[in-house]
Amino acid sequence: MTDTVLQTLDTDAPHALDRLRALLAIPSVSTDPAYRDGIGQASQWLADTLADAGLDVEIRPTDGHPVVLGRTPQARWNDSATHVLFYGHYDVQPPDPLELWESGPFEPVISNDAIVARGASDDKGQIMCFIEALRAWQRNRGGAPVNVTVLIEGEEEMGSAHLPAFLDQNKQDLTADFVLISDTTMWDTKTVAITYGLRGMVYYDLKLHGPSRDLHSGMYGGTLANPATMLTRVLGQLFDDQHRVCIPGFYDHVVAPRDDEREAWANLTFDPVADLLRPVGVETPFGEANFSTLERRWSRPACDINGLYGGYGGEGAKTIIPNIAGAKVSFRLAPNQQPEHIAAAFEQWLRSHDVHGCRWELTQMGMAEPVLVSTNSPYMAIARRAIEKSSGRKPVLVREGATIPVVADFKHRLNLDSLLIGFGLPDDQIHSPNEKFRLSNFALGCRTHAVLMGELGQANKP
Amino acid sequence: MTDTVLQTLDTDAPHALDRLRALLAIPSVSTDPAYRDGIGQASQWLADTLADAGLDVEIRPTDGHPVVLGRTPQARWNDSATHVLFYGHYDVQPPDPLELWESGPFEPVISNDAIVARGASDDKGQIMCFIEALRAWQRNRGGAPVNVTVLIEGEEEMGSAHLPAFLDQNKQDLTADFVLISDTTMWDTKTVAITYGLRGMVYYDLKLHGPSRDLHSGMYGGTLANPATMLTRVLGQLFDDQHRVCIPGFYDHVVAPRDDEREAWANLTFDPVADLLRPVGVETPFGEANFSTLERRWSRPACDINGLYGGYGGEGAKTIIPNIAGAKVSFRLAPNQQPEHIAAAFEQWLRSHDVHGCRWELTQMGMAEPVLVSTNSPYMAIARRAIEKSSGRKPVLVREGATIPVVADFKHRLNLDSLLIGFGLPDDQIHSPNEKFRLSNFALGCRTHAVLMGELGQANKP
Repeated sequence: MTDTVLQTLDTDAPHALDRLRALLAIPSVSTDPAYRDGIGQASQWLADTLADAGLDVEIRPTDGHPVVLGRTPQARWNDSATHVLFYGHYDVQPPDPLELWESGPFEPVISNDAIVARGASDDKGQIMCFIEALRAWQRNRGGAPVNVTVLIEGEEEMGSAHLPAFLDQNKQDLTADFVLISDTTMWDTKTVAITYGLRGMVYYDLKLHGPSRDLHSGMYGGTLANPATMLTRVLGQLFDDQHRVCIPGFYDHVVAPRDDEREAWANLTFDPVADLLRPVGVETPFGEANFSTLERRWSRPACDINGLYGGYGGEGAKTIIPNIAGAKVSFRLAPNQQPEHIAAAFEQWLRSHDVHGCRWELTQMGMAEPVLVSTNSPYMAIARRAIEKSSGRKPVLVREGATIPVVADFKHRLNLDSLLIGFGLPDDQIHSPNEKFRLSNFALGCRTHAVLMGELGQANKP
Repeated sequence: MTDTVLQTLDTDAPHALDRLRALLAIPSVSTDPAYRDGIGQASQWLADTLADAGLDVEIRPTDGHPVVLGRTPQARWNDSATHVLFYGHYDVQPPDPLELWESGPFEPVISNDAIVARGASDDKGQIMCFIEALRAWQRNRGGAPVNVTVLIEGEEEMGSAHLPAFLDQNKQDLTADFVLISDTTMWDTKTVAITYGLRGMVYYDLKLHGPSRDLHSGMYGGTLANPATMLTRVLGQLFDDQHRVCIPGFYDHVVAPRDDEREAWANLTFDPVADLLRPVGVETPFGEANFSTLERRWSRPACDINGLYGGYGGEGAKTIIPNIAGAKVSFRLAPNQQPEHIAAAFEQWLRSHDVHGCRWELTQMGMAEPVLVSTNSPYMAIARRAIEKSSGRKPVLVREGATIPVVADFKHRLNLDSLLIGFGLPDDQIHSPNEKFRLSNFALGCRTHAVLMGELGQANKP
């Protein structure tokens, strides 16, 4: 039964690529109000496309960007079948720095057997894998052999601020057996990974206000506190010599990985320089002392300055003491760290420094809990089997350093576990210029979702 | 004789203001290539205006922006009269942040008895004081009773990079008895100051390069050196707890002020908070331990971060590890510090820090030596007398925290001392939005230059 669906996917592949192109051409950047039209267009396009794949569809408003909700029609609903809630996001990261793109970020092109555009891998290409599988089942058999709810939100790249309330307010429409998410990566070009751990996040915009306006650095230099100097003075103390975060209590609740996990990670074929760092121009592993690169990435918290601003950053020289200096600072949280606790500790730490009359303006811009999901669920077992069938290889079980905020929300608000099967690759350059999604990954993603739907349909409902 | 000149200045004041408006309307920003046309227009406008004031004028090219050179015509040259070389600059600082201007930076308006525009006080308004005085002498007496050379350059706000070579190459046209400069401030609204000390400067653009592109902070956070984190880590160590610069050797050559200077400064009516800091929103004097605010400003070096950049600084959140982070860092040098020495020490200090595989790109963007001029010259005595006549008050002798790079060049290259008499006020907001020049200061500046020309004409050539 699944075989004919896979044939349909193969023969329809050129049209599937056209559909992906169409979605990628819509500039649905969520964080920047300048892209508001793109948000509207992308949600409408997905609603139309899900309807064409056989679902009943609604665009539901939130206090932020709308959610696209699709559902197996009542006429096809099978109470004895498994019910999958598929989650994805149609919003994308800002495309800047624009000058580093080799083609327009919203003008998708095929280059080196990959489609290049903002959102290609994160997450538009991956949600289209699921939708194409659904469409192929619908064209072949009138629908998939599972009950499906599809929830595609528009605020993932800005911390999914309004999704928790949406989950609370739409509980009755969001019952399911588990959540399926494709927003992660494969282990390598041939091996699919199931991700069972994600880091959490806390993101801050810090502004340090100094004098009431920019000042001439000759007239005032040396006589008052410069907020840019004070900002670097404080942020320069974030880490100790072992590259551990110096905020008191920061590591209090971090849970160490189990011995069997560390052993499994050590057995993965992974050279930190060759596989992770050299492709991005870095020759030296770096980070918290006494941990391997995979351990740092998967099980340890991190703190990064995501941006610095304030004063004159243009060409040439401007001799001012800036009125204000700022930084974007974010934390990736290891399992069991609480975002609220880290946020409070960070604010307290910042305010514990004497900034000599300057004034902090701290804006917390998104929190997400870290996640660890069980590797022993029945759906996990079915997924491993489906992946082996679709890819010809057993999947590996991994964690991720990144954050998918909604996974913790599904657990806490809907009591649903998530199954994370992604088809991106680590060098897809997500969040960077020239983001891409390999065409072979797109095809494997479509195929795997189609097989998984078939396997779930054949299995007894666990 | 001078009295009729002063009457002419009074009756012609509305037209003088029109001329100042016309000059201020030209956007002659020197540091930004986007304003190239403004540079050309401003130099031509000044050439025309100096010719109209009775001088022979040329616009001479340099490897950067051109120099406007005016000179008393041969027919009026008096070999027994004093020869004044007047120096000023027609270029201005960039106007950003544009959104903080209450009117267009190049659309001069009168507000609260001041003319508001970029360059109003620094230095277009002040050079027009001299030119209007010259013009009034010319209209009354066919010319001033002194020989005049006027040199107005277009690169002061970018460190006067090409002026030293210009001085060397035009020595024969730049002989004079002394240099007269109006690019400083009065002591208060009623008291003119003669400035006999200036700080020097070294300006750097620092870029710290990290990974070859912006990276997803979840995928890579904690596994490699973040250049923004490293930059703040290094810059955060610029100062010790006494707010002294930590660069080895930084203070080696600083000359302390003489006892009589410190005593004179202590006797000046000056409340650091009320007179300097509160007007710019600062309530707390701050700086190097064991020095007063005036001592810090006039006789101690300073180090300021003039700008920070790199990564995401826009609205909202972007979860990246930036490819690059940068800062503009400048030093104000106290008398006897050598810019080359400070630059070398700073670079060595930066490179002495382990930045864990990141790479510095250091761009030195201008150097200027500090200056101390004698307070006992005959021209200084004449200037003090002229100021008392024009303003009704004895001038005070002060130093400045700012830098006028050319003063050291005039000394070293042409063996000329400078006499610095300025008509700005500390709250003119030079280098800031809403820069202004009070109309009463403009009038006093015109009058003082006219009286000074008269006094120099009456004095025996010293």
